[in-house]
Amino acid sequence: MTNAQGYWDILFAHADIATMARGRYNIIKDGAIGVTKGKIQWIGSSDRLQASSSAIADEIIDCSGKWILPGFVDCHTHLIWAGSRSNEFEMRLSGASYEDIAKQGGGIAATVAAVRGASEDELFNIASRRISHFLSRGTTCVEIKSGYGLDLENELKMLAVAQRLDQCFPLHVSPTFLGAHALPPEYKGRADDYVDLIINTMLPRIKSQGIACAVDVFCESIAFSPEQTKQLFAAATALGLPVKLHAEQLSDSGGATLAAQFKALSCDHLEYLSLEGAKAMAHAGVIAVLLPGAFYMLKETRKPPVEDLIRLEIPMAVATDLNPGTSPVYDMTAVMNMGCILFGLTCEQALAGATINGAKALGLDKRKGSLETGKDADFVVWDIDAPADLSYQVGISLVNKVVIAGKIAYNA
Amino acid sequence: MTNAQGYWDILFAHADIATMARGRYNIIKDGAIGVTKGKIQWIGSSDRLQASSSAIADEIIDCSGKWILPGFVDCHTHLIWAGSRSNEFEMRLSGASYEDIAKQGGGIAATVAAVRGASEDELFNIASRRISHFLSRGTTCVEIKSGYGLDLENELKMLAVAQRLDQCFPLHVSPTFLGAHALPPEYKGRADDYVDLIINTMLPRIKSQGIACAVDVFCESIAFSPEQTKQLFAAATALGLPVKLHAEQLSDSGGATLAAQFKALSCDHLEYLSLEGAKAMAHAGVIAVLLPGAFYMLKETRKPPVEDLIRLEIPMAVATDLNPGTSPVYDMTAVMNMGCILFGLTCEQALAGATINGAKALGLDKRKGSLETGKDADFVVWDIDAPADLSYQVGISLVNKVVIAGKIAYNA
Ligand SMILES: [Zn+2]
Ligand SMILES: [Zn+2]
Repeated sequence: MTNAQGYWDILFAHADIATMARGRYNIIKDGAIGVTKGKIQWIGSSDRLQASSSAIADEIIDCSGKWILPGFVDCHTHLIWAGSRSNEFEMRLSGASYEDIAKQGGGIAATVAAVRGASEDELFNIASRRISHFLSRGTTCVEIKSGYGLDLENELKMLAVAQRLDQCFPLHVSPTFLGAHALPPEYKGRADDYVDLIINTMLPRIKSQGIACAVDVFCESIAFSPEQTKQLFAAATALGLPVKLHAEQLSDSGGATLAAQFKALSCDHLEYLSLEGAKAMAHAGVIAVLLPGAFYMLKETRKPPVEDLIRLEIPMAVATDLNPGTSPVYDMTAVMNMGCILFGLTCEQALAGATINGAKALGLDKRKGSLETGKDADFVVWDIDAPADLSYQVGISLVNKVVIAGKIAYNA
Repeated sequence: MTNAQGYWDILFAHADIATMARGRYNIIKDGAIGVTKGKIQWIGSSDRLQASSSAIADEIIDCSGKWILPGFVDCHTHLIWAGSRSNEFEMRLSGASYEDIAKQGGGIAATVAAVRGASEDELFNIASRRISHFLSRGTTCVEIKSGYGLDLENELKMLAVAQRLDQCFPLHVSPTFLGAHALPPEYKGRADDYVDLIINTMLPRIKSQGIACAVDVFCESIAFSPEQTKQLFAAATALGLPVKLHAEQLSDSGGATLAAQFKALSCDHLEYLSLEGAKAMAHAGVIAVLLPGAFYMLKETRKPPVEDLIRLEIPMAVATDLNPGTSPVYDMTAVMNMGCILFGLTCEQALAGATINGAKALGLDKRKGSLETGKDADFVVWDIDAPADLSYQVGISLVNKVVIAGKIAYNA
């Protein structure tokens, strides 16, 4: 049997819905979503459903008293790593300097050593726990960067783990090659040689294996220079790989302007973004990815120029930046809260940042990030009174169900 | 059968343990805890267990690879309320002032109206969800304040809910009477009359019903004056009720010195605590309760004088201050993290603050807050590599099991 709207595999009815289309709540009170073959086939007010409910879908989920929002798109994570660095956190709070910690083999070097020493299976098992947790907190699409291998074999190992996570979990994983995350210890004093290795050996392999959707670089005084970044971007672009950048986190190195020249997907961090850099991003359509978790954990005081970004109509995404050194943050609602409290985002901007603008930062906004007909049926049913609850409440998960491609992937 | 250590109801073996006795980790690697009749009968290294394990306890829980720490004692909460105030949070972020919100009937007045309008059963059901969540995050003892009723009937209703929560949940609830939280709307312009009502009507009833363990006052320009606080403390003390104070949160009103004169259990908030006030607290043995959640949500910039507190050897507790207006924070590990990042506590100080010093702030440290023979067997088994993980990781719960009075009260 069919009705005016069609017949669906599954229907979610009687939820209040914020579609987040075009970055706004676009609230549908007492709404419904009809899903077939994993896509949103119909979305609208429940009272527009024309047949008796039993005749319109194989399965009907009553969401009375709940909200449906798009699943979170976490567009910046480093979630594959081995080892723990809570000891460094403790040392720093007890007065140790970053130098003290580096002398003891700590910092990113500790994570690189642990990742190199771990097998692909070990990394997969560790990362599986993290991605399961992400799913339980409402994330349905996650970017994962390499960048703790820093040689061909170990970078490929990390990307293979990302690929397996994509296959084994319902979440969509978008893998990013970040060979230019830090200088590997064996290249100390020979940064240009390492850049050559990335360009001549790693990038061609990444391309031929089709194992990454984008190429990222950490452009900063403590990492790679603008000139090296430019070489890396030119090589990636020549191979047809999209680029993105860790830019202007600790200083204004002009990375954003450079990234704009290469039509980067996103520039991430941006605490020291100049007006000139912001204008270049706006002109080139580069998304701004804000990472308040790292800002908070590093006790930074200079905020990204949110007002400039808004005035220039640059879409702002927010992401966990999950990593063991500067952002051990495992929940997008925590990031939304920090975006509001620390960066002055409104609740609506924070939610747009965690959904549709995150999808834009990954080039996936045609399929994900908002609830519109034809898009993937990735959404979360929430036990909340209003979308603002997600940014407001700290230390509690309000997830009721997580739906990916129309299937219930997690039930609280 | 017995052995050298005795025979226990339940034995938790092969966990790494931080006892937090005297506020320090006091780590026992591969430790064990034997419990009988809800008390810790034995604690020590697993290899000191002298009999084969089957002969020493009715039940043995293998905690290999896990840590056992004391259950959290959350010594400052307002967890009983009705209504939601996420709308105010959203309005403030969108540019509304506190005055705009007050004009629309928002602020604490909104919560008072909602609490007065809710039945005892409704309040109990709402608060039950919150206390269940607290339990799942490792809190085993929680203080709960009245203070949204602001008349005899509704303050007693709130305290009756606290009493039912204590009876219906395994957590220990320590109820506090906070009639002097705010001026009720019907007493506008007549604060002294409301203070008289508290002193002449409410306090005697609280005392005769034995329904509160302590009396709290909000001493601040926007609440009650030092003179009013003094009258309230004198009345409570005359009835034999211990006192505590919301002190020096937004200004230095001399509340801490006053509280010290009355040998208060604790002074809470303390952002504007003077050195003189701190010295008075030290002399009188008053515990300092830090509430970083409210500091964070209110975007305060002046921190409590943590270095003075340490130098004066004043025990520092940390607590959620869970409330809908200024601290919708539901997890003690979030508070520990904020204590470290925002107030500069070490991980050990944060954990002591969440356990033994929280117990001291409630006058319960003889029974709770650390793992020592004779104390209540209230503890949490954690999936962590080190105690610092609790303060370091954000947006994830690492609880494996929560044990209260030797019984497993929550299993993750
Ligand atoms: Zn990053
Ligand atoms: Zn309070």
